[in-house]
Amino acid sequence: MAVYKKIELVGTSSSSLEDAINKAISKASETLHNLDWFEVKEIRGGLSGDKVKEYQVVLQVGFRLD
Amino acid sequence: MAVYKKIELVGTSSSSLEDAINKAISKASETLHNLDWFEVKEIRGGLSGDKVKEYQVVLQVGFRLD
Amino acid sequence: MAVYKKIELVGTSSSSLEDAINKAISKASETLHNLDWFEVKEIRGGLSGDKVKEYQVVLQVGFRLD
Amino acid sequence: MAVYKKIELVGTSSSSLEDAINKAISKASETLHNLDWFEVKEIRGGLSGDKVKEYQVVLQVGFRLD
Amino acid sequence: MAVYKKIELVGTSSSSLEDAINKAISKASETLHNLDWFEVKEIRGGLSGDKVKEYQVVLQVGFRLD
Amino acid sequence: MAVYKKIELVGTSSSSLEDAINKAISKASETLHNLDWFEVKEIRGGLSGDKVKEYQVVLQVGFRLD
Amino acid sequence: MAVYKKIELVGTSSSSLEDAINKAISKASETLHNLDWFEVKEIRGGLSGDKVKEYQVVLQVGFRLD
Amino acid sequence: MAVYKKIELVGTSSSSLEDAINKAISKASETLHNLDWFEVKEIRGGLSGDKVKEYQVVLQVGFRLD
Amino acid sequence: MAVYKKIELVGTSSSSLEDAINKAISKASETLHNLDWFEVKEIRGGLSGDKVKEYQVVLQVGFRLD
Amino acid sequence: MAVYKKIELVGTSSSSLEDAINKAISKASETLHNLDWFEVKEIRGGLSGDKVKEYQVVLQVGFRLD
Amino acid sequence: MAVYKKIELVGTSSSSLEDAINKAISKASETLHNLDWFEVKEIRGGLSGDKVKEYQVVLQVGFRLD
Amino acid sequence: MAVYKKIELVGTSSSSLEDAINKAISKASETLHNLDWFEVKEIRGGLSGDKVKEYQVVLQVGFRLD
Repeated sequence: MAVYKKIELVGTSSSSLEDAINKAISKASETLHNLDWFEVKEIRGGLSGDKVKEYQVVLQVGFRLD
Repeated sequence: MAVYKKIELVGTSSSSLEDAINKAISKASETLHNLDWFEVKEIRGGLSGDKVKEYQVVLQVGFRLD
Repeated sequence: MAVYKKIELVGTSSSSLEDAINKAISKASETLHNLDWFEVKEIRGGLSGDKVKEYQVVLQVGFRLD
Repeated sequence: MAVYKKIELVGTSSSSLEDAINKAISKASETLHNLDWFEVKEIRGGLSGDKVKEYQVVLQVGFRLD
Repeated sequence: MAVYKKIELVGTSSSSLEDAINKAISKASETLHNLDWFEVKEIRGGLSGDKVKEYQVVLQVGFRLD
Repeated sequence: MAVYKKIELVGTSSSSLEDAINKAISKASETLHNLDWFEVKEIRGGLSGDKVKEYQVVLQVGFRLD
Repeated sequence: MAVYKKIELVGTSSSSLEDAINKAISKASETLHNLDWFEVKEIRGGLSGDKVKEYQVVLQVGFRLD
Repeated sequence: MAVYKKIELVGTSSSSLEDAINKAISKASETLHNLDWFEVKEIRGGLSGDKVKEYQVVLQVGFRLD
Repeated sequence: MAVYKKIELVGTSSSSLEDAINKAISKASETLHNLDWFEVKEIRGGLSGDKVKEYQVVLQVGFRLD
Repeated sequence: MAVYKKIELVGTSSSSLEDAINKAISKASETLHNLDWFEVKEIRGGLSGDKVKEYQVVLQVGFRLD
Repeated sequence: MAVYKKIELVGTSSSSLEDAINKAISKASETLHNLDWFEVKEIRGGLSGDKVKEYQVVLQVGFRLD
Repeated sequence: MAVYKKIELVGTSSSSLEDAINKAISKASETLHNLDWFEVKEIRGGLSGDKVKEYQVVLQVGFRLD
């Protein structure tokens, strides 16, 4: 039966949490295939003055090993 | 004084975290009334190729028992 | 070297999680400067009928002490 | 062998933590039998001016399924 | 899109952890359909003298709401 | 919409958990208004001989910022 | 400098949480001295019909080693 | 009413998780009586080449104090 | 002195938790050597009708870096 | 009886964990008195090339309110 | 196969975290043998004025039972 | 915007916690660049007789993906 691996990434975005998630998934798909699911572990962000400079979403991405 | 019950649901959406939350609340309101608050317990999602197929938000919904 | 302080706020918004985060940061910046980062600790919300009345994001805001 | 179910309730009381627990158990017993144990998950409360308006005890109640 | 519900059960068995899980799933399937996944939350057990009397596996069972 | 702040206090009492909570709330109300809710984070205590010298309840108090 | 040991006990009482704590401390003091502090780890209880049969408070007790 | 003590053990076995639990309970029963329940806190293991050398189950054992 | 790396895998099996662990270890050993220990992080599973389709054990595997 | 407040600080140091703790305590003592205890919540750090640029210790500081 | 026991100690030191750990291990070795490993559970400390009076390291010590 | 990856390492040292952290960072820098931050997840150690044989610091190292 299948074995999966989980790696931990941090996606960043200046616009939204979903965009930060997508940035991380998109990056992962450059070198990995069989991406299957993700789990958000932490939501943080950087501030600049009185504004959110970037949202940072720490997530684990699970993929099936061949 | 009031007693409340909390149930655990998973809302899904292909567009946003807020939409996944709303989907779950909307479903809950079909059979329950006096819905009062929700608490997000986990954020996950399914992937398809290099895209997020769906956001999955695990949440508890609290409502007052009659 | 620098010492930072973290305070805990709850931002609320009827429209989105990001808006709730921004509301809290904006409020914090009225009385504090050197705001540096934030960490989301909890996501909750109030319900009204079958609708989300407000998203509530509990977050810690870190800033450098002079 | 037996299978048990756990449900999550929030009992409230203006007088004590024990009373909030009892309120929740009493409510549960109106519709369930074979109540067996409870586990306190969270203790919170509402404030009014400089007073505790109500203690809120979040608890899980376990009962045997027939 | 689909909405799922999670309920919490405790399966018991005198023989193995897997059997305790199966007992809980089997009981759940008597009244629910569309059972989809489970998550083990806690493993405990009762003792009698120097022997394990029963394994108790606390698990959440997720199923799709119609 | 409203923004809330949470501070962390430790109330102490030689008589009961509720009294320790009330002591902390009462102290907070000397300098803060709009107190709205509290969340118990930890329950500890000091011992003297074979007696509880004091109950210590660590709690967060939430209040609305003007 | 001092070294302390922490042991884990469960005090039970049919009347209150404080009484359950005191029962555990009192038992510990029969065989240990230099009891210094306690930390509540879990609050549970047994039910009988629609009543709390006993409160069970799991606590760690710290004491100085000679 | 009764007071219980919980101790923490690690049972090991080359064959199964249940066997590791039983090894720990069996050892505990050599010096303690009134063993009542156990709670699994952690599951780990040692590896040798591409094989599991031993399963290690960290568990707390509760017993009634006389 | 040695430095170790931990990776996170999910082993699956239709028969037992131990088999799911072994499947993950076996897969890891295809590309890594010096495998030293594992830590179970989560136990889940997929359901099909009223049966467990597969046990899923999330585990971290530690190995020494050369 | 006394009421205490806990604030959260991050001390930084290029030399050691203890120095980072002391930096935070020292800063706190500039504006607060009756400092009583601290609790480390998190240990992190910044890297520069292959070196630790600074240790960051997140800690809560407790002090008695007058 | 071997069974291990874990006890929980608090080592204290006015100089360093490592010294607090060593103080606890040294004390444990006065009455126990086969000490095998330790796990740090918590780092705290006492303050005096603007100085750290003592570091307190809560740790579990594991040892093999004969 | 940037995407980061986090890997989990265990640094060991017979002398200090900081040295164990540095050993892990140094090893990571042999094969990775753009190392940015680390987060300590766990502190453990091996014992030999009444002495600490080695400190083991489990940490996550974050680095920017090109």
